[in-house]
Amino acid sequence: MNRIHYQPLGGNQMPRFGGPATMMRLPSRPDASGLDACFVGVPFDIGTSNRAGARFGPRQIRAESCLIRPYNMATRAAPFDSLSVADIGDVAINTFNLTRSMAIIEQAYDGILATGCKPLTLGGDHTIALPILRALTRRYGPVGMVHVDAHADINEHMFGEPVAHGTPFRRAVEEGLLDPKRVVQIGIRGSAYDGEDTEFARSVGVRIIFIEELMERGTKAVMDEAKSILGTGPTYLSFDIDGVDPAQAPGTGTPEIGGFSTFQAQQMLRQLGDVDLVGADFVELSPPFDVGGITAWAGASLVFEILCVLAQSVQRRG
Amino acid sequence: MNRIHYQPLGGNQMPRFGGPATMMRLPSRPDASGLDACFVGVPFDIGTSNRAGARFGPRQIRAESCLIRPYNMATRAAPFDSLSVADIGDVAINTFNLTRSMAIIEQAYDGILATGCKPLTLGGDHTIALPILRALTRRYGPVGMVHVDAHADINEHMFGEPVAHGTPFRRAVEEGLLDPKRVVQIGIRGSAYDGEDTEFARSVGVRIIFIEELMERGTKAVMDEAKSILGTGPTYLSFDIDGVDPAQAPGTGTPEIGGFSTFQAQQMLRQLGDVDLVGADFVELSPPFDVGGITAWAGASLVFEILCVLAQSVQRRG
Amino acid sequence: MNRIHYQPLGGNQMPRFGGPATMMRLPSRPDASGLDACFVGVPFDIGTSNRAGARFGPRQIRAESCLIRPYNMATRAAPFDSLSVADIGDVAINTFNLTRSMAIIEQAYDGILATGCKPLTLGGDHTIALPILRALTRRYGPVGMVHVDAHADINEHMFGEPVAHGTPFRRAVEEGLLDPKRVVQIGIRGSAYDGEDTEFARSVGVRIIFIEELMERGTKAVMDEAKSILGTGPTYLSFDIDGVDPAQAPGTGTPEIGGFSTFQAQQMLRQLGDVDLVGADFVELSPPFDVGGITAWAGASLVFEILCVLAQSVQRRG
Amino acid sequence: MNRIHYQPLGGNQMPRFGGPATMMRLPSRPDASGLDACFVGVPFDIGTSNRAGARFGPRQIRAESCLIRPYNMATRAAPFDSLSVADIGDVAINTFNLTRSMAIIEQAYDGILATGCKPLTLGGDHTIALPILRALTRRYGPVGMVHVDAHADINEHMFGEPVAHGTPFRRAVEEGLLDPKRVVQIGIRGSAYDGEDTEFARSVGVRIIFIEELMERGTKAVMDEAKSILGTGPTYLSFDIDGVDPAQAPGTGTPEIGGFSTFQAQQMLRQLGDVDLVGADFVELSPPFDVGGITAWAGASLVFEILCVLAQSVQRRG
Amino acid sequence: MNRIHYQPLGGNQMPRFGGPATMMRLPSRPDASGLDACFVGVPFDIGTSNRAGARFGPRQIRAESCLIRPYNMATRAAPFDSLSVADIGDVAINTFNLTRSMAIIEQAYDGILATGCKPLTLGGDHTIALPILRALTRRYGPVGMVHVDAHADINEHMFGEPVAHGTPFRRAVEEGLLDPKRVVQIGIRGSAYDGEDTEFARSVGVRIIFIEELMERGTKAVMDEAKSILGTGPTYLSFDIDGVDPAQAPGTGTPEIGGFSTFQAQQMLRQLGDVDLVGADFVELSPPFDVGGITAWAGASLVFEILCVLAQSVQRRG
Amino acid sequence: MNRIHYQPLGGNQMPRFGGPATMMRLPSRPDASGLDACFVGVPFDIGTSNRAGARFGPRQIRAESCLIRPYNMATRAAPFDSLSVADIGDVAINTFNLTRSMAIIEQAYDGILATGCKPLTLGGDHTIALPILRALTRRYGPVGMVHVDAHADINEHMFGEPVAHGTPFRRAVEEGLLDPKRVVQIGIRGSAYDGEDTEFARSVGVRIIFIEELMERGTKAVMDEAKSILGTGPTYLSFDIDGVDPAQAPGTGTPEIGGFSTFQAQQMLRQLGDVDLVGADFVELSPPFDVGGITAWAGASLVFEILCVLAQSVQRRG
Repeated sequence: MNRIHYQPLGGNQMPRFGGPATMMRLPSRPDASGLDACFVGVPFDIGTSNRAGARFGPRQIRAESCLIRPYNMATRAAPFDSLSVADIGDVAINTFNLTRSMAIIEQAYDGILATGCKPLTLGGDHTIALPILRALTRRYGPVGMVHVDAHADINEHMFGEPVAHGTPFRRAVEEGLLDPKRVVQIGIRGSAYDGEDTEFARSVGVRIIFIEELMERGTKAVMDEAKSILGTGPTYLSFDIDGVDPAQAPGTGTPEIGGFSTFQAQQMLRQLGDVDLVGADFVELSPPFDVGGITAWAGASLVFEILCVLAQSVQRRG
Repeated sequence: MNRIHYQPLGGNQMPRFGGPATMMRLPSRPDASGLDACFVGVPFDIGTSNRAGARFGPRQIRAESCLIRPYNMATRAAPFDSLSVADIGDVAINTFNLTRSMAIIEQAYDGILATGCKPLTLGGDHTIALPILRALTRRYGPVGMVHVDAHADINEHMFGEPVAHGTPFRRAVEEGLLDPKRVVQIGIRGSAYDGEDTEFARSVGVRIIFIEELMERGTKAVMDEAKSILGTGPTYLSFDIDGVDPAQAPGTGTPEIGGFSTFQAQQMLRQLGDVDLVGADFVELSPPFDVGGITAWAGASLVFEILCVLAQSVQRRG
Repeated sequence: MNRIHYQPLGGNQMPRFGGPATMMRLPSRPDASGLDACFVGVPFDIGTSNRAGARFGPRQIRAESCLIRPYNMATRAAPFDSLSVADIGDVAINTFNLTRSMAIIEQAYDGILATGCKPLTLGGDHTIALPILRALTRRYGPVGMVHVDAHADINEHMFGEPVAHGTPFRRAVEEGLLDPKRVVQIGIRGSAYDGEDTEFARSVGVRIIFIEELMERGTKAVMDEAKSILGTGPTYLSFDIDGVDPAQAPGTGTPEIGGFSTFQAQQMLRQLGDVDLVGADFVELSPPFDVGGITAWAGASLVFEILCVLAQSVQRRG
Repeated sequence: MNRIHYQPLGGNQMPRFGGPATMMRLPSRPDASGLDACFVGVPFDIGTSNRAGARFGPRQIRAESCLIRPYNMATRAAPFDSLSVADIGDVAINTFNLTRSMAIIEQAYDGILATGCKPLTLGGDHTIALPILRALTRRYGPVGMVHVDAHADINEHMFGEPVAHGTPFRRAVEEGLLDPKRVVQIGIRGSAYDGEDTEFARSVGVRIIFIEELMERGTKAVMDEAKSILGTGPTYLSFDIDGVDPAQAPGTGTPEIGGFSTFQAQQMLRQLGDVDLVGADFVELSPPFDVGGITAWAGASLVFEILCVLAQSVQRRG
Repeated sequence: MNRIHYQPLGGNQMPRFGGPATMMRLPSRPDASGLDACFVGVPFDIGTSNRAGARFGPRQIRAESCLIRPYNMATRAAPFDSLSVADIGDVAINTFNLTRSMAIIEQAYDGILATGCKPLTLGGDHTIALPILRALTRRYGPVGMVHVDAHADINEHMFGEPVAHGTPFRRAVEEGLLDPKRVVQIGIRGSAYDGEDTEFARSVGVRIIFIEELMERGTKAVMDEAKSILGTGPTYLSFDIDGVDPAQAPGTGTPEIGGFSTFQAQQMLRQLGDVDLVGADFVELSPPFDVGGITAWAGASLVFEILCVLAQSVQRRG
Repeated sequence: MNRIHYQPLGGNQMPRFGGPATMMRLPSRPDASGLDACFVGVPFDIGTSNRAGARFGPRQIRAESCLIRPYNMATRAAPFDSLSVADIGDVAINTFNLTRSMAIIEQAYDGILATGCKPLTLGGDHTIALPILRALTRRYGPVGMVHVDAHADINEHMFGEPVAHGTPFRRAVEEGLLDPKRVVQIGIRGSAYDGEDTEFARSVGVRIIFIEELMERGTKAVMDEAKSILGTGPTYLSFDIDGVDPAQAPGTGTPEIGGFSTFQAQQMLRQLGDVDLVGADFVELSPPFDVGGITAWAGASLVFEILCVLAQSVQRRG
């Protein structure tokens, strides 16, 4: 198929403070057909237990992404040269009803995946990973996952509810969406109710790399191990901005101090080039708690890194 | 009954920046028994259509209320001398499930009303008025209402949902909780989908006073009319902070420019002394969008005015 | 001609925090052809003498405009039912070169006006009124102007430069773009170097209504006089957000205290229905100095009012 | 004496965002000798009962004053043409010791007054009015006072202390510094412990004009009465920024809603031209609680109005 | 004795944005009797030399602490299972008088220590360490100290005053409250008047570990040395938030760039389990200069770490 | 020559929140004569491609510098003891005309250099390095440069313009102002249009040290190499605040995540003592995008480090 290689609108054509407020000032497209990868927003945050606001995440990441240029100086990736990428807008979730929103999201991703396009999701809170994984599994079978986060999000329930932003991966394991032996969680830290969640992870074979281990061994060693766990099967990348230290990412709902830096995040993401990524999300960015746009800008920059490694996967698959 | 006349903790006993973060630094009580009036928080905001954050309303209004002293210089009211008032904390709503929260709130208010105490609610978004009215009607029969707001909140539905922060009073009329002939809405303005909502109000007999009429006639004339509409029956007061102009109240989710001032709000509230208030709420204050605490401070100050007029009602009822 | 009556994307189709970040979530169009009126951004601010930042004005007004619904409750205007309106994006100004930007803007407006479309400009600093007036005059001949502002912007020069945000209307009078006898300036106030500027205005016949006169006589009387001055000829509306009081509009570069309110601004704009508007701008909104988005939200709301009166002009012209 | 008429540095000589951060970009002078009036900062705030921060008031008012031009368009005053005015910097108060600071301030003002210069003080919290009045009385005898504020500041004590920001005028009356029959307080409002303070004021003959009376009668009538009370004797002007509504002046320590506007403040100040002002202060501006600099800018603008009327007094005295 | 093991209110009982604003949502108790450890606020900041605001520290740390869960994933500590801990509120300091406040604080700590309870203090500026040490020494004799900070706080005087936030440990050494041979200061950096302070420390045997040494040797080596210095005697922990880098802790009065991270702070604190802690403070957190609550959240998180090691000391002592 | 060794105003003479708002509270001087080094502001930002605001850089760095004391604890430098240093204010640039401003700046630096004084520039955007280098080369011949930044600033043009903040060093190489073999750029990172700029640098012999190399090798190794490249010739230091990570320096116009820390910046600067510095600039600090003043405070602190190494150069030259 003859794909159009859309390019971000350049700063020498339109000043960076002008132009469309799409992701990286790419063209806006009504759906994913004809695209290799797409940016799609899911402005959903009613699965949030503390500070809401991730509903504004897609809008704000797009706004700050105006500074991104198409070439990655560190990795020499030029993803827009090899892929057809555009911004397909937002999923029209129902902000008053969590259950209905789950169905709306799942259906929207069925549609995206049907075109063969790889979705790069701008969240939204972490609850949205569940319906996305449901759609992904329907297409690819159970997937592996590299999950970067301060929290494992494998609670049994929250306030008695089975579906919320602290439970998606418990449900995903139970529903057979994730292959727990191919799941690695990186950056976990903070306080907990007790050691129960860790026990669950261990019992099903999920590998948790706490922040102390990451800091001790370094990003290279940890990602080498992660890649050996993920292997060659289809893999999902879920990146929760609260994995990053709150100094660099204050705009999130449940911050945990003592996190890794954006530099470490870049180093980790850049090692995923060999992994078979079938989709990715970037979640929990809450603009009302951001200061000076630094979290949204960090988000836009990290999403660009994700796109660069996703491009490698797409090219390999052909 | 021998009631305890709790007093706000004074600034000469404990500096205002210290002491408990309860409403007006009153004692904290586990429930409403033995109280004439109580402050109760409902940290609920998942009925919000745009900017969430009213979940933090109760906490922030309490924090800023530390500056309130017990005597109202303008009206010479000293509500703590005549009433037993305390802070009974928050209703433990379910932030992931709107429907269950409605039931939790209704049940909590049944409990408060059973003690004979008048609840002064710190919201939360406007959805919470619906379960509160359900409980009130069970005790008092259909009530009248003075509703100060930028929006009439009488939409047929929002995104297909019957219960959300733009619909409570449509539902309340339909369920017979409100006597529409004894309802007056003040300060309404802004853009709309069409003229349909106004039609509904007119058809059932609700009196809408748009902001232009308020500005033209003045607070005295408008409130005189309002009182003639409310009459002597049991009346609920619902005060949405977005009625106040966004310059004085930026911390709200759906601001509308061209509003009335806090001075006008005080003038309006102070004329309610003759009305038979059986409860009141103060809603839609969203701290993440506040600046320098001015909205929360306006909220604390207006809630004090509401308490002063509520005290008059309670005393009259004996 | 068969025009498409685009409608703002409704909150029941897509939550207000999602959807495209165009003006009022209208469709984006590549140019003005086929439109009766268009929103066009001019992200230019290098004519600013103190606080820059108006370059972000178009982006931020659009972002906050997501709350605007299509029907004006106060005036019953429904502009999208009578007009074909869309967002045609931004003019690609040269942010390093004021002179070249003037030419770029003038050329862009020649293009818009050639289609018969009425431009509603989102600025940008006030310098941009000069190239817009140059294009307008080429089409309509010298125009009248209603100019709402804290400053008369008729300086002889700024730092020796003839073109800057404090001089556009001096130049426009000198170049014969404005008919000074049909120009009225409203809301002028603050400190000055001396009385020279006022002298110039008086000598050429411009009517300056200082803030004290506006407050004394009221918006009705002032606008009645304004309309008698403007008469029936083609008229331009230039609205500088710093006319509004800094409490309601902190996000601007040269604020002046003691301004009029957004309510007064609405009252003034609503009286312009009889005037023959051939274009309008809304300028000097500087998001980096805004707080909680209140200035941008005021801007979006006032631009909607301007659209409502512009619609009346367009309809009359047929 | 041959006085130098210093002029504020103009925007056509140095951009307003550059140049010295003195008041109105005037020259800095080591002391008051040779000056008719001086700006002097007193960065003192340990008399504050709630939010501190007025210690940064002088620095921030100076920073924002860079926008003030030398001519008052409303009153046609050009104070720098008739007076020799400069900025003499700050009084080196002891921030750890309230008592010692009182002595330091008193001594500093003795020095200023000895030169015949009229001090225009940039506070600092309201406690500083006491040592200033002590010095003034030594030179002029007991003075009258026009006091614009939300609070009467005539408490008996605060936390047992006789000297704090809520007590200066009680002490000043007791010490014979103020002639209570020539004192008028304007804008008073809010909650209180009881009616005791008002009783004290009444008993000694101070005239309190509450905000409700100001709003009802208007600034003209109120100031006419004020001037008849002040008469022709030496008069001090004390302006507490918290008199202004918190929407326009959020940056203060004990805000009270329902205040007057900056426009009303300007109207009141402009009527003081006939009064024999021997000094003035502008106090309680707390930059850490300001937003976007609007309070400090309001402060700089109102201080310019005060200078304009002070100039009239100085000229009359010759 | 039969102690009650209070637990923080869980997020599944009450949403984290609701419930009491006590430390970690623990029960509020009128005094320390029956408790093993207590949180106590000292809202004092008039010993501050630059930016005040630490008076709001206790309130804000409590507000942000709502996110802390009872189990420490990194160390597996569960302090509430072994200790009886509650929040005993604030010490009613006199904000107008530094000297009287010193006496009030000392007396309050005498009362706490008399019950055998270990105080964990929420400051307040660093001056408060002096009266706390006076009370501690009365009970335990001279104590050792681990002092984490950017500043040594051993000035001879400030502005001539012997007691202020830069002098407490000079006074404490002079008064025999601290055993200087058992004092280690970690993280010291920045500019100074000269090398005099370092000389004093060296002369009395205090060990200063500058930031460069900490960064070079790492937290493990440094804390090993610290523990060998502290030995087995009674030890006080004083943690000044300005030791942490300003990126992670902007909300403080005298920030110094180039600090350690919250991750390093956690590593250091976690090594104190073997030390015999008899009390601890957490000081200098100034909410008015915080952004997005990140400093207060860092504070709440680090105070939890301190509680975890304090619990080990208490248990060992039995 | 008998030079005056000015000292920063100490905190024991004037509280740090008071006193003149000059750099480090040094005396203000009308020009550079008699000084060894001077602070000079260039409030220019119209060469900025995205977020403007660096025009306020000089004012804000000065305001925050009030906390700097004269002695560097880490390096034991006491620059004011060996040098005569003062603040000579700002260059009066023309904010409406980039070309004219270039000439104004060049002429101003000719004047400074003619006195033999070393200028330490407070920017302003990076465009200003070009006219400064033109003046420096006239005096010293082509210079070497250590350039700390996230961007190489060697674009061919921006929006067709040859002079803007992304091009100064391309022009400087072309004009023979810089000896490219003696230029090292440190900290470069982020996205780019393509690899062209790096090619240019390589072709002329500039050494680019990307952030990854800096993080891998450490500051010591990198600076050793840098010094061997710079050699003994005259060298310029250009420090762009956006080299520092956005968490520590959010107040800048084109932030790039994954930067070095202020601690690393200090380590790098402190190794420049052997280099023959003939001038330095500190640029791109944009206060409107700062939060809580942390960027400006980082700026003031790093400028002090630069002064300390500049003092060593000046002393060596004698």
